[in-house]
Amino acid sequence: MNSTTVRRVTVLGTGVIGTSIALALRRAGIHVALSDQDVGSLATAECMGAGIALMPGDPPADLVVIATPPSTVVSVLRDAQARGLGAVYTDVASTKARISAEAELAGCDLTSYVPGHPMAGRELSGPHAAHADLFAGRPWALCPHPATSPEAVRVVAEMVAVCGGAARILAPDAHDRVVAAVSHAPHLVSAALAARFAGADATTLSLVGRGLQDTTRIATGAPGLWCDILEQNAESVATVLEAVVRDLTEAASALRRSDRARSGALADLLTRGNRGREHIVAA
Amino acid sequence: MNSTTVRRVTVLGTGVIGTSIALALRRAGIHVALSDQDVGSLATAECMGAGIALMPGDPPADLVVIATPPSTVVSVLRDAQARGLGAVYTDVASTKARISAEAELAGCDLTSYVPGHPMAGRELSGPHAAHADLFAGRPWALCPHPATSPEAVRVVAEMVAVCGGAARILAPDAHDRVVAAVSHAPHLVSAALAARFAGADATTLSLVGRGLQDTTRIATGAPGLWCDILEQNAESVATVLEAVVRDLTEAASALRRSDRARSGALADLLTRGNRGREHIVAA
Repeated sequence: MNSTTVRRVTVLGTGVIGTSIALALRRAGIHVALSDQDVGSLATAECMGAGIALMPGDPPADLVVIATPPSTVVSVLRDAQARGLGAVYTDVASTKARISAEAELAGCDLTSYVPGHPMAGRELSGPHAAHADLFAGRPWALCPHPATSPEAVRVVAEMVAVCGGAARILAPDAHDRVVAAVSHAPHLVSAALAARFAGADATTLSLVGRGLQDTTRIATGAPGLWCDILEQNAESVATVLEAVVRDLTEAASALRRSDRARSGALADLLTRGNRGREHIVAA
Repeated sequence: MNSTTVRRVTVLGTGVIGTSIALALRRAGIHVALSDQDVGSLATAECMGAGIALMPGDPPADLVVIATPPSTVVSVLRDAQARGLGAVYTDVASTKARISAEAELAGCDLTSYVPGHPMAGRELSGPHAAHADLFAGRPWALCPHPATSPEAVRVVAEMVAVCGGAARILAPDAHDRVVAAVSHAPHLVSAALAARFAGADATTLSLVGRGLQDTTRIATGAPGLWCDILEQNAESVATVLEAVVRDLTEAASALRRSDRARSGALADLLTRGNRGREHIVAA
């Protein structure tokens, strides 16, 4: 089989992720066509040098990147394949099992589709927040279906490498369990911490330090998009949250006691936290 | 009343906070005497240029900074006052109400004691982790007792300014409620997130991104010291944790449902998180 080199990419969706991919590809001299139903967003991405608007009659791309909200990916994929927009397709949605199953049910061509998820993002959204280095050194999950062709995986992995990302191949179910722990549940936990400050007074805010700034950074994020993501991965996220709730409930109850055992319960959680953090830092 | 300018400071405890204060004061040309029961820690701080070891017969300092663990502050203060080590005293412990009450019970001289708490820290401990800029631009709570003299407060505020910190005067009870929300409860929440990774496998760790790195940064921290801190502020921390638990329990239960109402519950939490985060960023 001949190896295609990626020369021509179409990016559907010019939000922060789609535009950042487009900028990284343009920097490498790859031709990029852009599409977005929001004409303002599309114009902004064009002005930033992310590519030019996709036109009817454009030749098929080597690769089509679907960078639209998770719940729209399957319909956008089916439509793009029906129009013959490209030879290979990938997406960037942060859940994979349900999208993969729905793509199969919808009759999409799975041989040319490589479900993907770059593990990078910004707390800001829209093309203005995009930059070409967003994926540098970041993991980028690829979750091929058994029917996906090896050549399609190779093409998408090449695009990931051009963006500076590190491709990781894993099964859709495993991906969703892992991102529930590393991204989706932390998002809700960060929101629950930040929510304590929704009506904060000046005295409280006068003592805010870097610890709270860091733990709540990801609490910025469009609620609509995040509901969409969380509902696509509901069971796995709930399982992680329930474990966090168990630990925090035990800590709160230890703090309400005044016996000597409470120190043990707190120390146990803090020690497990230390150990987990060591793994996270080493990752 | 004559205003004393701070020329001579004694720092008791050469951990990361005490040594950082000492380095900041030395940089401003202030004479610093150091003391620590751990001779290795003391020698390290001296080698770093944080000051010279306190010697018997040294003249009294303008200010004595007690930078020892929270549960030891009152006994160190009483002993330091009995030895006449200085004219004014402050500490850096991250809880204030109990220490203040115990200092009064222990018969400490409250006119010369200004309970303090710099809202800065490092996830690392020990003098090696110290640096002179640790407090630059950071809030530094001062919680004087009604008996504390205004001149003592002025002296400590001058030291805070030399360290680059921003002094905030507030009552001990208010301080403790605020730090429960901005620091102590976030520490346990961060630990509960990090604890999910205590036994993490390679696949999970392969997808760790910046969001998890930030939300778990403060989960590094000596469990012993943190138990000490948390027990000194148990009620306030428990109250914040219980509110976080309520939000996360509701989110998990919404994720376990499959009706349309679940989106509303998630969006409510995410929206309150957005609003709280806006306040935190503006702070």
